[in-house]
Amino acid sequence: MRPLRTAEILAVGSELLTPFRRDTNSLVLTSRLNELGISVVGKAIVGDDVSALSATVQAALTRADLVVLTGGLGPTDDDVTRDAVAQALGLDLDEDPSTLAAIEARFARRKLAMPAINRRQALVPHGGVVLPNPAGTAPGLWIERGEQVVVLLPGPPREMRAILEGELGPRLAARSGGRHVERRVIRTTGRPESTIDEIASPIYTPWKTAAPPIETTILAGGGQIELHLAATSDGTPAAAAALDRGVAALVSALGDIVISTDGRPIEAVVGDALKARGWMIATAESCTGGGIASRLTDIAGSSAYVAGGVVAYADAVKTEVLGVPAEMIAAHGAVSEPVAIAMAEGARRRLGADVGVSVTGIAGPSGGSAAKPVGTVFIGIAVPGGPATAKAFLFLGERAMVRTQAAMAALDLVRRTLAS
Amino acid sequence: MRPLRTAEILAVGSELLTPFRRDTNSLVLTSRLNELGISVVGKAIVGDDVSALSATVQAALTRADLVVLTGGLGPTDDDVTRDAVAQALGLDLDEDPSTLAAIEARFARRKLAMPAINRRQALVPHGGVVLPNPAGTAPGLWIERGEQVVVLLPGPPREMRAILEGELGPRLAARSGGRHVERRVIRTTGRPESTIDEIASPIYTPWKTAAPPIETTILAGGGQIELHLAATSDGTPAAAAALDRGVAALVSALGDIVISTDGRPIEAVVGDALKARGWMIATAESCTGGGIASRLTDIAGSSAYVAGGVVAYADAVKTEVLGVPAEMIAAHGAVSEPVAIAMAEGARRRLGADVGVSVTGIAGPSGGSAAKPVGTVFIGIAVPGGPATAKAFLFLGERAMVRTQAAMAALDLVRRTLAS
Repeated sequence: MRPLRTAEILAVGSELLTPFRRDTNSLVLTSRLNELGISVVGKAIVGDDVSALSATVQAALTRADLVVLTGGLGPTDDDVTRDAVAQALGLDLDEDPSTLAAIEARFARRKLAMPAINRRQALVPHGGVVLPNPAGTAPGLWIERGEQVVVLLPGPPREMRAILEGELGPRLAARSGGRHVERRVIRTTGRPESTIDEIASPIYTPWKTAAPPIETTILAGGGQIELHLAATSDGTPAAAAALDRGVAALVSALGDIVISTDGRPIEAVVGDALKARGWMIATAESCTGGGIASRLTDIAGSSAYVAGGVVAYADAVKTEVLGVPAEMIAAHGAVSEPVAIAMAEGARRRLGADVGVSVTGIAGPSGGSAAKPVGTVFIGIAVPGGPATAKAFLFLGERAMVRTQAAMAALDLVRRTLAS
Repeated sequence: MRPLRTAEILAVGSELLTPFRRDTNSLVLTSRLNELGISVVGKAIVGDDVSALSATVQAALTRADLVVLTGGLGPTDDDVTRDAVAQALGLDLDEDPSTLAAIEARFARRKLAMPAINRRQALVPHGGVVLPNPAGTAPGLWIERGEQVVVLLPGPPREMRAILEGELGPRLAARSGGRHVERRVIRTTGRPESTIDEIASPIYTPWKTAAPPIETTILAGGGQIELHLAATSDGTPAAAAALDRGVAALVSALGDIVISTDGRPIEAVVGDALKARGWMIATAESCTGGGIASRLTDIAGSSAYVAGGVVAYADAVKTEVLGVPAEMIAAHGAVSEPVAIAMAEGARRRLGADVGVSVTGIAGPSGGSAAKPVGTVFIGIAVPGGPATAKAFLFLGERAMVRTQAAMAALDLVRRTLAS
């Protein structure tokens, strides 16, 4: 059997054609298909319309080895995927007794009688294989047509993933010709995309035509830049080894702007560094308003190293709770290097922590001046065994962007300080 | 000329077929088209492939009055949209002198010579109308084919929107037959989707067949439920009046779970209520880790009513900074009603605020017990002129969901308290 190399993904449902809903299943599916060396060559979103969907399935089969449909497998008249696929392939629909029994059992476990309409969910295009759904009533379906395959999956992401991770994954792997794609991700922060590209591009450009070839992608967002590396494995360790050499070369060139190469976000890297030293951290935030503490405590188990924080929006909170001298604020302004230093020291001392990190800045849209425009941010840090210090930043963009970048820069200052 | 009633949207670009990028332009376009009474009947994402794209355009023209393409208008060989549309419609490409002059001028303003490849961006399928791009070099194009219209827009969202809000909007409005869609949004929190549906559905179901008909959608997420109402206006005020009556009827039935009917998020509603009373608020957060303070300070101008907050992750911070008695924590546990009350009082008093709101709970995945399972959360509130109080909640879901729901419930307790 020829291996599957190309796929189209069709998301079914009129609600996906409104401004309020978007198809997210296709991203999960694409990721898994790419891992198996299967490229996605097209995607479509189709409403609950048998003839439009049937035509779209037929068109997709002229272009792709594999067509995956998500959604439209519910029990109501709006759920047209089974009918449309049967029509597109010229197949009858048979009622599958074991699927019907499984649906009835699912209702029985909840002490409910199966509504008559759910009987439709046991219909299978002739010759199709049922992919059991551990998370809902609608099973997936696997239908072969010569060397091509059509897969039907339910729309709720939890159910779609349950089948993908259950019976579908191994079936696809068996048809992928033994190929799979290995990936590595290098996360960086503190330099713009253009700088990363300038450093990294001369290194990775020759890899595109090397053996095995490595594909690279730069993704920017949320104050960080990611470099994604991918290589298709032929079953030998060559691809993994090439990627590991590639990661090592890029990390060496990029230096200390690299946050992680193992997928950890910066708050996890900071958390692990704190745990390694047995240190507790405390935050003192003005313009980020709790965003740094919130990110640190996103991580399960962060109570082992987060003492807490103070959101010091009003100057009185800076003086009363953090102990920043009122005269210092009067002399230098709340957004200043000395105040950032005093906030970091205050957080560390008043909250009984080892590390104090502080942010004071002007997130905008108002509050800026010629000397301190919107985006001006001072970040302070206090650690055991030395005086607290602060750094000045100027972030561009509107309020939310300034806040996100400031939180990221503060976490990065902690990361660098703990690494040194 | 027959008005445009149906549209398909085609996003062009191989990067949109990876797991890392998704088409967002189509949501913006759908929203604008729906406002003009134009339904989106299909969407597709196509790679940088002339013949596949040309076939997709031809198929879309069999189903829709209007086909909008985004992306693939850059200057490189990968940018195939102009060629594919010309091929699909059987049109030659002409070089448009004024577009070429505009592109040259754009480079000249930046003291650059126009690279030769950018000349391609001045190619126009014969008979097409150029839609100037105020934000980039690639202009949009408007091509009529009988009563049908094909529109080409650049892929960068900022450029796409600039043309949509510029020349494209009025052209579409002129072809929409004078229709437009009015919308209203009712935001609620504190009750599950099924309860909202049970209350609202008997009220709005008859509206589907009323004159003018009102369409309703329920959207759930982030701890809140939204009811969207839409009606197509024929140019008279009938649709707006029907929607206003509908909103009034639903608000009356839903009661105090309604956050807003004017689009404001709960943190803005709380902020406006605080400003109206001239009150300052302070937060004391354990399991939400700064999430409430962060949401309150998302709002520009929130320094007028946010004093600040304390993230009291460690028990020592609860006692030292917020003044919660250590014996109380020992007797009742940190996650308890008395501690929530003491935290709210402490935030109010120690941060010099009028309102104190507190959260203490178990976000998980660990830390739960039989008596206090993961998801157990106590929310406290202290206001002038009365004793502080607290309420117990049990939120379902994993860590991030518990934190989001707890922050939402805390903001809602403040909203209800200020409204009473």
